[in-house]
Amino acid sequence: MIQVGIVGAAGLSGQELLHWLASHPEAEVVTATTGKFKGIRIEDVFPFLTGQRLVFQGHDTEFSGCDVVFLAIPNHASLEHVPRLVDKGIRVIDLSGVYRLRNIGEFEKYYRLKHTSPELLSKTVFGLPEYFRDSLKNASIVANPGCYPTGALLGILPFGNLLKKLKGTLVIDAKSGVSGAGGRVEDDTTNYVEVNENFRAYKAFSHQHQPEIKQLLEDLTPFDSTKQGEPVFTPYLLPLNRGILTGIYLHFSQSISEQEIRSRFETFAVGNPFIRIMSEGNLPDLRSTVNSNRCAIGWASDESGCNWLVQTSIDNLVKGASGQAIQNMNLMFGLPETTGLQ
Amino acid sequence: MIQVGIVGAAGLSGQELLHWLASHPEAEVVTATTGKFKGIRIEDVFPFLTGQRLVFQGHDTEFSGCDVVFLAIPNHASLEHVPRLVDKGIRVIDLSGVYRLRNIGEFEKYYRLKHTSPELLSKTVFGLPEYFRDSLKNASIVANPGCYPTGALLGILPFGNLLKKLKGTLVIDAKSGVSGAGGRVEDDTTNYVEVNENFRAYKAFSHQHQPEIKQLLEDLTPFDSTKQGEPVFTPYLLPLNRGILTGIYLHFSQSISEQEIRSRFETFAVGNPFIRIMSEGNLPDLRSTVNSNRCAIGWASDESGCNWLVQTSIDNLVKGASGQAIQNMNLMFGLPETTGLQ
Amino acid sequence: MIQVGIVGAAGLSGQELLHWLASHPEAEVVTATTGKFKGIRIEDVFPFLTGQRLVFQGHDTEFSGCDVVFLAIPNHASLEHVPRLVDKGIRVIDLSGVYRLRNIGEFEKYYRLKHTSPELLSKTVFGLPEYFRDSLKNASIVANPGCYPTGALLGILPFGNLLKKLKGTLVIDAKSGVSGAGGRVEDDTTNYVEVNENFRAYKAFSHQHQPEIKQLLEDLTPFDSTKQGEPVFTPYLLPLNRGILTGIYLHFSQSISEQEIRSRFETFAVGNPFIRIMSEGNLPDLRSTVNSNRCAIGWASDESGCNWLVQTSIDNLVKGASGQAIQNMNLMFGLPETTGLQ
Amino acid sequence: MIQVGIVGAAGLSGQELLHWLASHPEAEVVTATTGKFKGIRIEDVFPFLTGQRLVFQGHDTEFSGCDVVFLAIPNHASLEHVPRLVDKGIRVIDLSGVYRLRNIGEFEKYYRLKHTSPELLSKTVFGLPEYFRDSLKNASIVANPGCYPTGALLGILPFGNLLKKLKGTLVIDAKSGVSGAGGRVEDDTTNYVEVNENFRAYKAFSHQHQPEIKQLLEDLTPFDSTKQGEPVFTPYLLPLNRGILTGIYLHFSQSISEQEIRSRFETFAVGNPFIRIMSEGNLPDLRSTVNSNRCAIGWASDESGCNWLVQTSIDNLVKGASGQAIQNMNLMFGLPETTGLQ
Repeated sequence: MIQVGIVGAAGLSGQELLHWLASHPEAEVVTATTGKFKGIRIEDVFPFLTGQRLVFQGHDTEFSGCDVVFLAIPNHASLEHVPRLVDKGIRVIDLSGVYRLRNIGEFEKYYRLKHTSPELLSKTVFGLPEYFRDSLKNASIVANPGCYPTGALLGILPFGNLLKKLKGTLVIDAKSGVSGAGGRVEDDTTNYVEVNENFRAYKAFSHQHQPEIKQLLEDLTPFDSTKQGEPVFTPYLLPLNRGILTGIYLHFSQSISEQEIRSRFETFAVGNPFIRIMSEGNLPDLRSTVNSNRCAIGWASDESGCNWLVQTSIDNLVKGASGQAIQNMNLMFGLPETTGLQ
Repeated sequence: MIQVGIVGAAGLSGQELLHWLASHPEAEVVTATTGKFKGIRIEDVFPFLTGQRLVFQGHDTEFSGCDVVFLAIPNHASLEHVPRLVDKGIRVIDLSGVYRLRNIGEFEKYYRLKHTSPELLSKTVFGLPEYFRDSLKNASIVANPGCYPTGALLGILPFGNLLKKLKGTLVIDAKSGVSGAGGRVEDDTTNYVEVNENFRAYKAFSHQHQPEIKQLLEDLTPFDSTKQGEPVFTPYLLPLNRGILTGIYLHFSQSISEQEIRSRFETFAVGNPFIRIMSEGNLPDLRSTVNSNRCAIGWASDESGCNWLVQTSIDNLVKGASGQAIQNMNLMFGLPETTGLQ
Repeated sequence: MIQVGIVGAAGLSGQELLHWLASHPEAEVVTATTGKFKGIRIEDVFPFLTGQRLVFQGHDTEFSGCDVVFLAIPNHASLEHVPRLVDKGIRVIDLSGVYRLRNIGEFEKYYRLKHTSPELLSKTVFGLPEYFRDSLKNASIVANPGCYPTGALLGILPFGNLLKKLKGTLVIDAKSGVSGAGGRVEDDTTNYVEVNENFRAYKAFSHQHQPEIKQLLEDLTPFDSTKQGEPVFTPYLLPLNRGILTGIYLHFSQSISEQEIRSRFETFAVGNPFIRIMSEGNLPDLRSTVNSNRCAIGWASDESGCNWLVQTSIDNLVKGASGQAIQNMNLMFGLPETTGLQ
Repeated sequence: MIQVGIVGAAGLSGQELLHWLASHPEAEVVTATTGKFKGIRIEDVFPFLTGQRLVFQGHDTEFSGCDVVFLAIPNHASLEHVPRLVDKGIRVIDLSGVYRLRNIGEFEKYYRLKHTSPELLSKTVFGLPEYFRDSLKNASIVANPGCYPTGALLGILPFGNLLKKLKGTLVIDAKSGVSGAGGRVEDDTTNYVEVNENFRAYKAFSHQHQPEIKQLLEDLTPFDSTKQGEPVFTPYLLPLNRGILTGIYLHFSQSISEQEIRSRFETFAVGNPFIRIMSEGNLPDLRSTVNSNRCAIGWASDESGCNWLVQTSIDNLVKGASGQAIQNMNLMFGLPETTGLQ
């Protein structure tokens, strides 16, 4: 039985971890911290977790006996916690963004934070299981991917070498439910009357997930931003609770057949149990993946075969955060990656 | 006092016409038809139109005494009504799509309808007042623009000659509230549990508004789809009642300054009373324009100045349909175009 | 392994049955019928049921080999199917309302249907497991309770003898999400723009669930409508997908202590694994029970102790329909009632 | 031209005042204060108020030249501002609750505030125009009614003497959109993911609007809470922006005819231009009154004629707050009460 700690267990991602781990057959939450509900039983704070009688602790807990600790806290807080946990020899799955970017200059520009432990970056594995399954086995720090990068990368990476033939800009237009944009953090962004019956883009060209997408594209495919231009990324706030639908526009210098695209994605889906490929002519909606760890992928093209639109659907709190974190934990501890996620 | 008829007055666009015309100082609805509520007083069907004691008539009405008739009915029905009204010498504002495309081949491909009165196309003025103000004065048939083309064109056309410098594909990613996707038409598309907490694209690369956008771009700017490729257009269904937020991605072969873009749009806004330009760094949300005939326009770019994202916001039932139709009526009858729309 | 058939498997209740039965360890769906998707694999119609490769059949199927058949179809259709299934010796769980009321006069008044098999009523067990657990074991026909009666009865029945002290009218004011009001049935009731940003009561004093509540109150408690008046019942349509929050106003002729109320409900909760009692001062919200088979119950009173408000929360598609139906199946086949429902 | 000041002009009620006053022909906003946007033009903060170039001031403004000042601020802040304004001889319309209850004991119990100017209560007129039209003419302080009391009282007061025949408890079950429950105030109450797809009661038996309803019932009808019991009042939070639907259950000791009820309400509607009576068998929905100053009223009864359910619909920000405040201003300054409100 894996002994699990969660830092920030009362936030939206933390609650989602508690929800999935409650029925995980090989893991047990033994420590859960929160700034707000210290000393109260989990089930008394969150009625949907009835039966979870563990008492919330404060963030100063020691996590003794934990095999792995999930961090579901803001960026600056992860910078404080991770080095301490690593020093104690506890394996870490960090849901914040601070151990994802290797380029410290880009990190500081997009996150507006000074990085205090850059030496840990080389020990960190990027937790996208579909591409880093093997490295995860022995990882001591896993940087769980951002919700938007997860949705974008799973729709682009399978193109592989075809990305050399991209002409013009790669455009990523991603629409997220409110839980992906701050959740319980109580500013106007998530105030009901601001969000309901409304829709808007935010942080166009300046969101911190843009360099994350670029880094992985360059790591894993022949895509080269210095020649092909940075990918363009726009996130939006949808008036609904959960889900990210990502639209990816690819313009190729020559026609590509549906058969070729399909073949690449179906090959990708083999051995990746959470990838769902839509049948021809169908694009996924958010409902296809809500409350699941799946990523559903579909596409369409114009008659020329040069312009392709890929659409991916994920639940931002599951495959985009806590579900993927558990998938990573499974791989770190030698379990089938679907354990507790179906 | 302009004597007004409305065919299809009980649909969503029809209701919106009734709403705005109720407080129009120079127009009076004298005939309103519907397939469903014939013989019932308007205020008894729609409580928000309290005071409107006109009785709904059937579609076989004669429209005698009408100076102008608005058609807010499906495409095939407009094909039947328009020629008859024109024969009687009644001016027509058609909210359907059947008199917008001059290319009959494209019309029949995208609308899957045979055109039965192509001879009327040459007598028709495209009802985008910002660009056809003068021709509207004497128009006998006005083809009111589609909701998506309105949102897209008002964000692209002001680029004018700059569109010659477009490199790669022009991408239009447009998200619409449910009233723009069929409204009362009762199929699954607008069923509550299908739409609520959900989001999806539909008709990617095949929506009938795509050739409409292309036609106007080619008519009014140096944009040439045979050389630059067809614009790519994707519509989506948002879980909310009203509004279209259109994202337009333009990739230029050289850097363009914010100042140049701003200058073109501010020049455009002068003399176009419903155009609102956002201040630098701000993109419009749907709330900026809901229940108004405004189109709000903002933009952002990457550091290179080559990639631009324009965002426009309109209320699909007002500037995207009935408000624009009244704006057209005002111009046809020599009134200030804002009459009854503020 | 229980061999299960479902009639009407593509409706909202049918989908919910398929969802829960997919992970039921002791039951297997072997036949699923629908009027609409005959011949198509279930997973191809409903992506969230990925892995369910059974092919939908038409309603004329024989259900051979089925141990039990769930009926998730309109009232008139259940009247046709149930006698035929009973003749074949197949046990039936009917989610429609036609085998619930013993009083045929009230049935025909509220349902506006002629009852064609009243002789089956005496063979039918009312499927509220909390009160009919023993009879369910050998039931050949189970009338699964209405969603509103489930929410109302679980909040009133535990008062037991105290109901003799009721003074004035028992008021039940129940608010339901859209899936409880017809779901995919495509009339205006569930059209997005009619429901969204709107709220209204319907069928006040005339809903068919009112006599169902009355019948059970009189069967199981000293409540006597001829002396105490019929309970007043008002249902409302909430702009959300799932859940029923029922407010019950009880006015007693003398003061009752919180302790007494609490004692009765806590006694009730013992041995009823899906009943959740709120702590003092807390009322349940819909979120407490969504996607679960739980019923959460809380209460408040005025200072006199004579006026009590009980609030219950259920998911109308789970405890209010398909979850309760599976709970009934478990009891019919001697399984622990929570099997497959946690 | 009435010179108007608004304290708290950037809150939801304040914005609504600015919206309606923008097209009021006889009033002009000359001073608008806010804690948050001091020094910024109104139209730059709120794009839907385009054209309103007044600059927000801080709360320490003098309001010199104002004929009337609207207070749209929290309770404790009104207690500070009102006496100062009255001292300056400026007429005041207070949208907070602090000058509504004459019983200081009940005030302090329900508001948990010490009242610092009880001497002003006798100078205050309760701003329900349908019942205090004459007194409003010379009022120096108007206590604008609470949103819930407005919806409840307009559905109960017209019963008049019939309320002597009430038997059992008067039950008021009122459901409000989010803007009625705190609006921009940023706590969990109005956080999107807490409210969306959720529904719950709050402050049952303890809401501060309960004694306000009781006071007015006792002032204006023979209702006597010492004999008939306090009215029971439960408010709920609906997942939508605007509107309050109030259900009122009345149980009479004898049968009352629909004709008698209708006659009383239709008499009431004469001379009260914002009251709308539904036709027989119809209950109002929220849409009937959204964005209007109307109150729509309908009812239903059981067969005995002893149990009646009245439903009223108002927009909580208009008839429930700012619209009613302007209606009061109109009467204070001798204008037709509908001025600027249609």
